[in-house]
Amino acid sequence: MPGKVYIVGAGPGDPELITIKGLNAIKKADVILYDRLIPKKLLEYAKANCELIYVGKERGKHTYTQEKINNLLLEKAKENKIVVRLKGGDPYIFGRGEEECRFLKHKGIDCEVIPGISSLIAAPIFSGIPLTNRELSSSFAVVTGQEALNKKEKKVKIAKIASCVDTLVIFMGVKNFSKIIKELKNAVDDSTPMAIIMNASTDKQKTIITSLSEANKIIKKLSPPAIIIIGKVIKLRNELWHLD
Amino acid sequence: MPGKVYIVGAGPGDPELITIKGLNAIKKADVILYDRLIPKKLLEYAKANCELIYVGKERGKHTYTQEKINNLLLEKAKENKIVVRLKGGDPYIFGRGEEECRFLKHKGIDCEVIPGISSLIAAPIFSGIPLTNRELSSSFAVVTGQEALNKKEKKVKIAKIASCVDTLVIFMGVKNFSKIIKELKNAVDDSTPMAIIMNASTDKQKTIITSLSEANKIIKKLSPPAIIIIGKVIKLRNELWHLD
Repeated sequence: MPGKVYIVGAGPGDPELITIKGLNAIKKADVILYDRLIPKKLLEYAKANCELIYVGKERGKHTYTQEKINNLLLEKAKENKIVVRLKGGDPYIFGRGEEECRFLKHKGIDCEVIPGISSLIAAPIFSGIPLTNRELSSSFAVVTGQEALNKKEKKVKIAKIASCVDTLVIFMGVKNFSKIIKELKNAVDDSTPMAIIMNASTDKQKTIITSLSEANKIIKKLSPPAIIIIGKVIKLRNELWHLD
Repeated sequence: MPGKVYIVGAGPGDPELITIKGLNAIKKADVILYDRLIPKKLLEYAKANCELIYVGKERGKHTYTQEKINNLLLEKAKENKIVVRLKGGDPYIFGRGEEECRFLKHKGIDCEVIPGISSLIAAPIFSGIPLTNRELSSSFAVVTGQEALNKKEKKVKIAKIASCVDTLVIFMGVKNFSKIIKELKNAVDDSTPMAIIMNASTDKQKTIITSLSEANKIIKKLSPPAIIIIGKVIKLRNELWHLD
C-alpha cells in the first residue's frame, strides 16, 4: 500500500481543540513529525509503535530546516507509511503547510490537509475580543509582524491596512513590537485600544489590554507566541466570556 | 446545579471537523439549539433524552429571531439545564455568537464559548487556495458582502481594502455579487484571479475559478453558502491538494 501524508492542524494549544478528523489521523499514523507549539498530550494518542520525530525550530537552533522536513516527509511516505505532519494552529494560516503540500504533490505523494483552529480563531474567543461585531467591526485584516518592517521594501503596508479596516490582527508581532507601534501611530488614533494575547487557549494564557499611546510601556511583559488585536472591538471584552 | 450555556462552533460542514471539546459539549447537553448550516450528523451524538430545537433562519421565514433565540437560551439555562448553542463555522467570525454570549452574561448565566473551524479556515484548505504564502501573500482582509453595499453610508470600504492587502476574502457575497465586482474593478487589476468556493468541506463542495473581468459570466452558477477569494494565491491551486 502506498504511503500517505496528512498535514494536520493541531489547534492553538488546548489538546481538546483538535478536530475529530485530525485526532483520527494521529491514531493511525506510523510516523508523526511534530512542531514545537503543538499540545504534547496529543502524541499520547499515537499507536505504541508510532515513530515520533520532533522537528521544531527553536531560535538559533536550525537542526531541522524546512528543506530537511520536506525531505523527511518524502522519505517516510516512500517507505509506504502513514505520515502525520502535526503543526500548531492551522496549516495554511502563516503555517507553511502549503509549502510542504506542494513539495509532496510535485513528488507524486498522496497528501491530504486537515484544518486546525488557528490562533486567529482562538485568541478572539478565549480573550473575549471578537473580530466582527454588527456595530463595531464589519471587516478585519491579518498581517505578519515579522515581514512587516524587516525588509527594505515593506511587503506589508501595515499603516495603510490599519487605516481602512475596523480591526487589525498581527501575527508574530513581539519581535518588532516598538517598530509596529510607531508605524501604526501614523495611521490610527492614539487612543485606539490594543490587546496582546499570549498562549491563547492554554492555562498560561495572558491578555494585556493597552492603547497605541501606552503600548511601549508594556513591551517587557511580552513573549511569543502572541496575537495582537487593534480596534474598538476590544471594548467588548468586559461583557464576554474569556479564559484569563 | 445551575445551568450553563456552551456556544459551540460546529465547523464548516464535514461532521468530523468539529473539535473534541465541541463534541463533548454536545454529548452532555440537555438541550441543543441548532442552526441551519450545521452538519446534522452531529445531533446523533446527543443523549437520547436531549431536546433538539431547530432555530435556523431561512430567507423569508423569521420563526426564530435573534431575540427569540436569546430568550430561549436564557429560559433553558434557568431551568438548570446544560444548553448547547450549535452554530455553523466559528461562533465569533460573522456568527453573532458574541451577541448571544453578551446577552447571557448580562443575565448572569454561566456561558462558555468553544471555537470552530470557520469557512475562513476551511475554504482555503479544501479549495487548495492558501490565504498566506511567502511570495504571494503576507496579508489578507476579511469583509462581509452583505453590509458592503446595502447601506447608504458604506461601512465596508471594499475597494480601498482590496487595494492594500495581498488577498481579500468576502463572506456572504452572493447576493450582492455584481455590485461587489463593479466596486472591486475600481481598485484592483481586471485580470486578478478570483475563486468562489461553495459548500466548503462537504461532498457538495464546488470551486469556480474566474477573474474580475470574467466574473459576471458565472453569476448564475452561484448559490450560498459561499466564500469569495481574490488574489494571486489562487494560482497555487493546481499545485495543492483540494477536495473538488
